[in-house]
Amino acid sequence: MRIITLTTDFGTSDWFVGTMKGVIAGIAPEARVIDLTHDIAPGDIRAGAFALRSAISFFPQGSIHVAVVDPGVGSARRAIAARNQAGILVGPDNGVLSWAAPDEEIDEVRELTNPEWFEHPVSRTFHGRDIFAPVAAHLAAGKHFEEAGQPVDSCHQLPWPAIREEEHGLTGEIVHVDRFGNAITNITVSELPEEALASGDVRVTCAGKTTRTHRCYADVARGKALALVGSGGLLELAVNAGDFADHFGVSDGSRVEVRWE
Amino acid sequence: MRIITLTTDFGTSDWFVGTMKGVIAGIAPEARVIDLTHDIAPGDIRAGAFALRSAISFFPQGSIHVAVVDPGVGSARRAIAARNQAGILVGPDNGVLSWAAPDEEIDEVRELTNPEWFEHPVSRTFHGRDIFAPVAAHLAAGKHFEEAGQPVDSCHQLPWPAIREEEHGLTGEIVHVDRFGNAITNITVSELPEEALASGDVRVTCAGKTTRTHRCYADVARGKALALVGSGGLLELAVNAGDFADHFGVSDGSRVEVRWE
Amino acid sequence: MRIITLTTDFGTSDWFVGTMKGVIAGIAPEARVIDLTHDIAPGDIRAGAFALRSAISFFPQGSIHVAVVDPGVGSARRAIAARNQAGILVGPDNGVLSWAAPDEEIDEVRELTNPEWFEHPVSRTFHGRDIFAPVAAHLAAGKHFEEAGQPVDSCHQLPWPAIREEEHGLTGEIVHVDRFGNAITNITVSELPEEALASGDVRVTCAGKTTRTHRCYADVARGKALALVGSGGLLELAVNAGDFADHFGVSDGSRVEVRWE
Repeated sequence: MRIITLTTDFGTSDWFVGTMKGVIAGIAPEARVIDLTHDIAPGDIRAGAFALRSAISFFPQGSIHVAVVDPGVGSARRAIAARNQAGILVGPDNGVLSWAAPDEEIDEVRELTNPEWFEHPVSRTFHGRDIFAPVAAHLAAGKHFEEAGQPVDSCHQLPWPAIREEEHGLTGEIVHVDRFGNAITNITVSELPEEALASGDVRVTCAGKTTRTHRCYADVARGKALALVGSGGLLELAVNAGDFADHFGVSDGSRVEVRWE
Repeated sequence: MRIITLTTDFGTSDWFVGTMKGVIAGIAPEARVIDLTHDIAPGDIRAGAFALRSAISFFPQGSIHVAVVDPGVGSARRAIAARNQAGILVGPDNGVLSWAAPDEEIDEVRELTNPEWFEHPVSRTFHGRDIFAPVAAHLAAGKHFEEAGQPVDSCHQLPWPAIREEEHGLTGEIVHVDRFGNAITNITVSELPEEALASGDVRVTCAGKTTRTHRCYADVARGKALALVGSGGLLELAVNAGDFADHFGVSDGSRVEVRWE
Repeated sequence: MRIITLTTDFGTSDWFVGTMKGVIAGIAPEARVIDLTHDIAPGDIRAGAFALRSAISFFPQGSIHVAVVDPGVGSARRAIAARNQAGILVGPDNGVLSWAAPDEEIDEVRELTNPEWFEHPVSRTFHGRDIFAPVAAHLAAGKHFEEAGQPVDSCHQLPWPAIREEEHGLTGEIVHVDRFGNAITNITVSELPEEALASGDVRVTCAGKTTRTHRCYADVARGKALALVGSGGLLELAVNAGDFADHFGVSDGSRVEVRWE
């Protein structure tokens, strides 16, 4: 049994995702399909890249990860599969795979040029169904990665948002607001001073609100803001039993300042 | 392994769909359940019919397709199963199955009257759980179609929205607005002149906006409207990286005029 | 094959639920995961408890039911597994399991203290991924319930909302508004007089609107309000082809008066 994960901006109000699964079931009846999310905002490549990056290490090695956030569908942009330690990543070559498959960790990239693996006729608007799902299914069914198409040198890399070092601190930004309104930054725990973090002496400012680091939401009173290291190892801002992003007007790209003594 | 697809207006915020899957798992543990969508607007039979029609041909033959958009649940409306080339369709006899199972392509229709296949006690408000899911599961587990109930002559057919032929063109309507705001018409590619389509000489007007046909979204600049043949072979209107329906105020039933020289 | 159901307030717009499934697949590849719902309002323990209670009896005995509505994640609140007739329930000990596992029907409760069953490092903010999912997976893979951790005496019970007996009636409240706007009360059919119910002589008043009991939505004209016994055996208020809760301004906790002669 191989696992195929799906990350798309297709939503769940149409039949799009179900149809991808129908195509997969016809080619690889034993593959198990797991949805990461289909609610990426239409065309938001960065959000798709972040979702895949956040989840991939929790899947068994050898899983096949399909990400389709593909505003250029039907145009000249390449369709690719990339192989790394985690498994195989399949999607358009527009950066959506790149945060889960940084160039230096990729073993091999192939352009998807093998028409025997496509669903025909191939539409100009739905490569999720006609190219990415059937390619993933053929791989899950045991076909060789090398048959996917011709090798290419690299895949398009989306730059990780810049972090600037300051005296006694860092400046970064919000990369994702989650369903609870927690605002996740681009700053990893390893970039923060361990001692100051443990003692709560790290101050985090976003949208005019300054908070201190704690260990979990319930460490502060209900309705109070805090900063903490989230489940993906990134610094985040939250309100206990509340919605930080909504309350303080924060969204993707909002600037974050981190300071310690 | 048999596949059961589910198309409903139950949403995903309640336990309704999960409960249907629990019932199926108890009867047919090996069946694989695939969601098409559960976000059909409450009672919108036509939208359910369109989703099923759009997806069915991408599933393995012999799959069982359950569609429950059932405003008449508990009343005298019939519950049916229809067998055709694609597999078996199960649902209320109110037209929701009919675009995926046109009368002339149906081999046999049965009214669901075999109480041994129901979940008891049968409620008056949730036949998805008590009739349609267990019937699909019994079929998936290998029971004979003929045991579902007594044969009936036909199932209720929802008429496909009318297309009027004009001089140098057609008049039709929008049948579905998808998650991206693409407005899908009831006009199939086979009804359009191949040459004019290829050369972009087909003009499509909807809600006062006239566009020309292209091959894919990225063929026009970002924010620009276009017409194209969508992944289901139907003419659709779209905005590259935008939301046509929202921008121009289009919804199901909006009139569409297609013209060529 | 064992079934694991998931009920959470994680939503489906992030990668949270998919990640839980990745963890499960790594430990128990044969387990089948079924979503009940992930759209419980953030932190709404009562809504999670009601969803699980409504669905649990429709799953095969021995299923494992995970419910994570966990505003106290990372704090001192216990994580537990409870075994009863239906199977095993896994979640935080904050009441979310209790309507599906009343104290008197529980065979045994264990606190989840076996670190060998956790995903490491255990985060302070996502025990769904790091504790509840892997514990459920180990149980599904055949590990013994007793290995989950030390026995505890009981689990936190959420009180079922009070019903007051009146002369010729009952006063209760709305416990759930479903996707259709049907308003489900805390009053079970067994508390109502059978004869008056059958004859439609039970009057139900909520938010100033008084209706009579019927058998199904279609028993009244479109747009008209009615009361009926819903699919979970609870009295509910509805509008045929309409949204009762929205129309009359009803929500969880709204008072309901039931009267008969």
